[in-house]
Amino acid sequence: MNKERIREIVEEIVKDSFKKSKMVPIAASNRHIHLSPEHVDRLFGRGYELTKLKDLSQPNQFAAKETVTLIGPKGKIQNVRVLGPARGRTQVEVSLFDGFTLGVKPPIRNSGDILGSEPITIQGPRGQLTINEGLICAARHIHMDTNDGKIFGVQDGDLVQVKVDGVRGVIFTNVLIRVSPKYKLEMHIDLDEANAAGIKNGQLGEIIGFESPKQVGGE
Amino acid sequence: MNKERIREIVEEIVKDSFKKSKMVPIAASNRHIHLSPEHVDRLFGRGYELTKLKDLSQPNQFAAKETVTLIGPKGKIQNVRVLGPARGRTQVEVSLFDGFTLGVKPPIRNSGDILGSEPITIQGPRGQLTINEGLICAARHIHMDTNDGKIFGVQDGDLVQVKVDGVRGVIFTNVLIRVSPKYKLEMHIDLDEANAAGIKNGQLGEIIGFESPKQVGGE
Repeated sequence: MNKERIREIVEEIVKDSFKKSKMVPIAASNRHIHLSPEHVDRLFGRGYELTKLKDLSQPNQFAAKETVTLIGPKGKIQNVRVLGPARGRTQVEVSLFDGFTLGVKPPIRNSGDILGSEPITIQGPRGQLTINEGLICAARHIHMDTNDGKIFGVQDGDLVQVKVDGVRGVIFTNVLIRVSPKYKLEMHIDLDEANAAGIKNGQLGEIIGFESPKQVGGE
Repeated sequence: MNKERIREIVEEIVKDSFKKSKMVPIAASNRHIHLSPEHVDRLFGRGYELTKLKDLSQPNQFAAKETVTLIGPKGKIQNVRVLGPARGRTQVEVSLFDGFTLGVKPPIRNSGDILGSEPITIQGPRGQLTINEGLICAARHIHMDTNDGKIFGVQDGDLVQVKVDGVRGVIFTNVLIRVSPKYKLEMHIDLDEANAAGIKNGQLGEIIGFESPKQVGGE
């Protein structure tokens, strides 16, 4: 048996033991932007194609070489990574801390839920535009595939609690479960949340329970 | 009975009901610096006295009008508030996010515990100096007086869990209890933690339990 095959088997065993103990790897997302095909044209020039810098953990998603500048009423943030591929509507995801820098108050939203969210101005090398809505602070969530959902005993849309150990230990409540055959097991939080819990990328969190309906929709 | 007296009575009743339900007001601390008398001299000029901008919640502590600039290997942070009065050893408290900006890794420490913490360069209007240790990220903690300690059933040095409700709900674990006759009831967290939990100043958290010894010192 060659080295590569042994590595695969070990990885499988480790992954299975995570799932048995309801452990989930955690990744912190820095600020980023998803662009509609139309907005790629306006910011980078007509017919422009985003170029892949590296693959992201979720299948077919990639970090592009391209970056933009966000311009708010109080300040700018440069070098904001574009994620690809270009998709439906433009969505900008920042932390609440970034919100202070820009002078805007991004609402805590699930990805795709941008109705009535904050406006922001976006500058690219070939143009600038303002979206009337689309700036959000992404709500913490866990991606998993259908099989993971069965193992963990959770369904798409469930809210769970996730415990992170350490000096800065935290139990995140209201963590949204997102199940799809195309997802890879990973919990996504933003940099504020990663710092608050002293989390390094790849660190594990443990699903320790469901939210009671009372706690959901508390705000 | 006059309005002022009624307000005092209402405040007392509200405070007592907080304590009965183990609720604690939360305040987020922005980055700040405590200076030794010697360092006040070196940064602001010999014999300089800090001037009070406003009182802080803890008795005799104040935010000074004076600010300094922190200079790290990767970046600077300007307008860092000096807290007064000048005291024993210089201590700089920043968030982990600030650590990225400066290019340093502040350890999570209790105030006063600076042995072997990070060095940093501090610039004032009349001088610049580098401390070999003293840069920390303050560990979350709750100040309370001796009577509060009795009501809550906790002692100085205990570690408790504090629950914060809301869309970004969080249970902070490893929250240090600090009891002193001179303290006023308040939980202190940094801006990363406030953002992660979507906390506004004055919002309440609930002490929901003690840490088991196993969880403490996990890192």
